Amino acid sequence: MNFLETKILSDGIIKQGDILKIDNFLNHQIDIRIIRQIAQELKQRFHDVAVDKILTIEASGIAIATMLDHLYDVPVVFAKKSETANSTDNKFVSQAYSFTHKQLNSVFVSKPYLNPSERVLIVDDFLADGQAVHALIDIVHQAGGEVVGIGIAVEKGQQKGGRLLREEGYRLESIAIIEEMDWEKQTIRFRE
Amino acid sequence: MNFLETKILSDGIIKQGDILKIDNFLNHQIDIRIIRQIAQELKQRFHDVAVDKILTIEASGIAIATMLDHLYDVPVVFAKKSETANSTDNKFVSQAYSFTHKQLNSVFVSKPYLNPSERVLIVDDFLADGQAVHALIDIVHQAGGEVVGIGIAVEKGQQKGGRLLREEGYRLESIAIIEEMDWEKQTIRFRE
Repeated sequence: MNFLETKILSDGIIKQGDILKIDNFLNHQIDIRIIRQIAQELKQRFHDVAVDKILTIEASGIAIATMLDHLYDVPVVFAKKSETANSTDNKFVSQAYSFTHKQLNSVFVSKPYLNPSERVLIVDDFLADGQAVHALIDIVHQAGGEVVGIGIAVEKGQQKGGRLLREEGYRLESIAIIEEMDWEKQTIRFRE
Repeated sequence: MNFLETKILSDGIIKQGDILKIDNFLNHQIDIRIIRQIAQELKQRFHDVAVDKILTIEASGIAIATMLDHLYDVPVVFAKKSETANSTDNKFVSQAYSFTHKQLNSVFVSKPYLNPSERVLIVDDFLADGQAVHALIDIVHQAGGEVVGIGIAVEKGQQKGGRLLREEGYRLESIAIIEEMDWEKQTIRFRE
């Protein structure tokens, strides 16, 4: 078991409805030792990939992206979310349904911050249905850039996001992949 | 002129209505070299202060808090914003009016992540009217903690937030304090 799986088992809380709360080290309180390890692990897994820019989405993704960037020294861009955003205002805009907030969000990046031919590494804290990551991919493609990899801390392997991205041919690296969670027994099984 | 003032002069855009956009290195795209310098400068300015926890507010504050924490090795907590939040759900809640979004936001921190007697360093990217920082102070006090300092990247010195916090006796350190901005001439004067 790797450091993140160990941490999830010790600190994660399973809630009814297939929800994993890791608020105490990643999504609300941040344990910098874990963030450092996540960043080092992602850098290592993408060691053979040239990266011009790191793209994430507010808010929790920013901590991972910042620490990863401390190792890469390229610009980070964090996409913003709002209930409404139009593309007339010099933005690349895509849509993502948030299961957490039960609403469709616009996700956007101001045009100056993504450029044609840039090799973009997308990072985020969670991957479930893949709505946010697909919106980020769409935005990179609108800008004419290339998605060279997707680095995720925790993938909920029971949901379809990871499978779809792999089928689409993206290089996806998730540090912990949850295969099964049992709310009543409070047990988690990770993918080998 | 310090590194941040220089960067603001070279990259900041003054918009009508006393708005300073520094989207290309702090609020949307992140220049990690500047974030590192901000973190080092804040650490240095608070070198004589014992800190148990760093508190910020989503979203842009997270990058600064993460990098600062890389130097401190204490937990970071980022307060969350929502249009509605109630305190029955195990949260410390306060209110802050957002001039950017023209709405009153609830700001909250889950109770387990702030504890009595903790010495809390508050950090944020911008200080203008001080609504967000006052909400964070309120939350620390609700938890029974102590605010040992407030570290800010950019203070808009023409607005009242900084003056109020200093009058209230808080130790406030802002790396760049804008004394005056002129939209038509696109000039900025910093406080000495």
